[in-house]
Amino acid sequence: MFRLKSNSLCSRSLGKRGLADLSAAALQIARTKSPKKKLPKDQLDFGRTFIDHMLKINWNSTDGWQAPQIEAHGPLVLDPSAAVFHYAFECFEGLKAYRAVDGSLRLFRPDKNMARLNKSSTRIALPSFNGQELIKLIGELVKLDQDWIPEGQGYSLYLRPNMIGTEAALGVHKPSDAMLYVIASPVGPYYKTGFKAVRLEATDNVVRAWPGGVGDKKLGANYAPCIVPQAEAEKRGFQQNLWIFGPEKHITEVGTMNAFFVVKDKSTGKNELITAPLDGTILEGVTRDSILALARERLSSDEWIVSERYASILDIAEAAKEGRLVEAFGAGTAAIVSPIKYIEYHGQGIDIPLQEGKEAGKLTETILKWITDIQYGIEEHPWSVRIN
Amino acid sequence: MFRLKSNSLCSRSLGKRGLADLSAAALQIARTKSPKKKLPKDQLDFGRTFIDHMLKINWNSTDGWQAPQIEAHGPLVLDPSAAVFHYAFECFEGLKAYRAVDGSLRLFRPDKNMARLNKSSTRIALPSFNGQELIKLIGELVKLDQDWIPEGQGYSLYLRPNMIGTEAALGVHKPSDAMLYVIASPVGPYYKTGFKAVRLEATDNVVRAWPGGVGDKKLGANYAPCIVPQAEAEKRGFQQNLWIFGPEKHITEVGTMNAFFVVKDKSTGKNELITAPLDGTILEGVTRDSILALARERLSSDEWIVSERYASILDIAEAAKEGRLVEAFGAGTAAIVSPIKYIEYHGQGIDIPLQEGKEAGKLTETILKWITDIQYGIEEHPWSVRIN
Repeated sequence: MFRLKSNSLCSRSLGKRGLADLSAAALQIARTKSPKKKLPKDQLDFGRTFIDHMLKINWNSTDGWQAPQIEAHGPLVLDPSAAVFHYAFECFEGLKAYRAVDGSLRLFRPDKNMARLNKSSTRIALPSFNGQELIKLIGELVKLDQDWIPEGQGYSLYLRPNMIGTEAALGVHKPSDAMLYVIASPVGPYYKTGFKAVRLEATDNVVRAWPGGVGDKKLGANYAPCIVPQAEAEKRGFQQNLWIFGPEKHITEVGTMNAFFVVKDKSTGKNELITAPLDGTILEGVTRDSILALARERLSSDEWIVSERYASILDIAEAAKEGRLVEAFGAGTAAIVSPIKYIEYHGQGIDIPLQEGKEAGKLTETILKWITDIQYGIEEHPWSVRIN
Repeated sequence: MFRLKSNSLCSRSLGKRGLADLSAAALQIARTKSPKKKLPKDQLDFGRTFIDHMLKINWNSTDGWQAPQIEAHGPLVLDPSAAVFHYAFECFEGLKAYRAVDGSLRLFRPDKNMARLNKSSTRIALPSFNGQELIKLIGELVKLDQDWIPEGQGYSLYLRPNMIGTEAALGVHKPSDAMLYVIASPVGPYYKTGFKAVRLEATDNVVRAWPGGVGDKKLGANYAPCIVPQAEAEKRGFQQNLWIFGPEKHITEVGTMNAFFVVKDKSTGKNELITAPLDGTILEGVTRDSILALARERLSSDEWIVSERYASILDIAEAAKEGRLVEAFGAGTAAIVSPIKYIEYHGQGIDIPLQEGKEAGKLTETILKWITDIQYGIEEHPWSVRIN
């Protein structure tokens, strides 16, 4: 566990080209005069219930980052020509604040989210920012509204940093104005009554990402195009698409999560944990990275192989037939791990084992415990960052 | 030239699932109380100067399309969790209103824009709408602010229909609320002092569109990712990227325009006008379609071949070397045609002929005249739709 350094010595520093960088020391707080009534924790509605305040930081190409503002969660007022409405100048992050078992407030690997948001923003000509400063500011927002985080494991505060281009002009160019803001929504456990394994439709007629594209960035642009394929899969009784790419029929991602498979290796008899490599088409999931690191550290290499490599849906189908498919799951911030029980590919069904009487595989279960133990401070770990 | 039918008999009709369709008859007009001062026509700034009014139509999944509103051009007020800010639920059109030589106000093939906007919106789970009704509504907006259209050929009113998802919720799903709006900006001639041919950088390390993706739709998602590659090309002295796709090095588009090449055919000696086919990766340009139709109708087939097929940048380089490359241009609503004089591909230069002492090829010049003559009613043609 790391404590954030005090920002008492900070003042707004000038970055490249003389533009002001993001500075937590310049924060101004205007508390809401009409705090909202908090919902009972069993009535929380993810992404619709918001805390009282939001964080807002404007940027312009002349002066750089302006003084951060914490103010009442309220509407954005933008000209209808604003860049974000026309050309998808928008990128975001998702992370959570947790109330740990010692009562402290924690974030989970926020440095990873900051690094990824900077990669996303600069890829679409939006400004970069000092990630450590944004972590401090997020800390201030969470502390101010900490009463919104319900007690109990599985509860947390979902944080949504978002950056948008706000210049009011229809020309297709780098926006001269931008806004970085953070809104937050209290959330309950993803699986309220234990795991519920999902059925996937393997999709190769619609392609989410492509080499040389932007599928590895957390851009708005990657999301809207996936809704119709998902709705079509749902109509046929599946919860998500399993995105298949290329003539080799590589498995890339599942819905909006990274995909993991456990297959018994033919030659060694070891279990191989497989997820797609970061080749520019795969979202660089923080949960994905955490799972790989923990698996490499904690699974015995006598029994396990941890691989960042492509698996073909054809290989997975073959492994299933031969009884070598052990388990499969999606990985992301919302659910941490989401077990998969069935995949259909061109009409062919692939059954994926679950534990007897359970809705998840053994590793899936183990990983959930590893990560939640760190997030809630049950196990002290450098990834859990204290903000108070 | 077609007159729009009167909408006097229309009332709001119910479409599928009992939702109200878009209805021009339900239009409500609230004129601005503070009209803006009009800029002199030599000071117009494309996409930054807007007319006094805008058209706004809300949609929700319970009732469908609401009564259209014409009101003062003014800010949109949206919750920071609105779908458009996070997942790029946004698609748009660009078309122009012209003051014809007979004094009437005209649109150019607006049915094509309506059809394309419907294709775009439904691809990202936003609602469809009755295109003829939106054309009528656009007509009302243009008539109301017709004084904003400067006199003179080359001047017009750029219209920007835009549809966004407005539901205030962070879940990744089909938005329950949307808004279709139209803003408008008066514009002057794209080439104020005659054509200015451009230099392109052929780009194959960044990929704009791919099979199974959404590159053929006019989605915001297709635009933000192109800004950084364009800025990098500019740094190296080029105006635009020429997008190259696949192992065959196919030419797809130029910047945000369709690409056309004229090459002398080896076997027949005819000039071949080549543009990429609508295979799902190419934007279905209205100007592209108009050029193909006019070329097929007006160019002698004894001398010309009109082809929708891929040309490889390697073939174009070879044709240039052999003296068979005749001319090249981009095509889009803004410039109609934009002549190309030079392409660089992996350090290799391709010079493209221009007419002696001119900045465009002969066909480029001819096409500009064909299309502007129709747009300004110099030649009466079914594509020019009168709105008053």
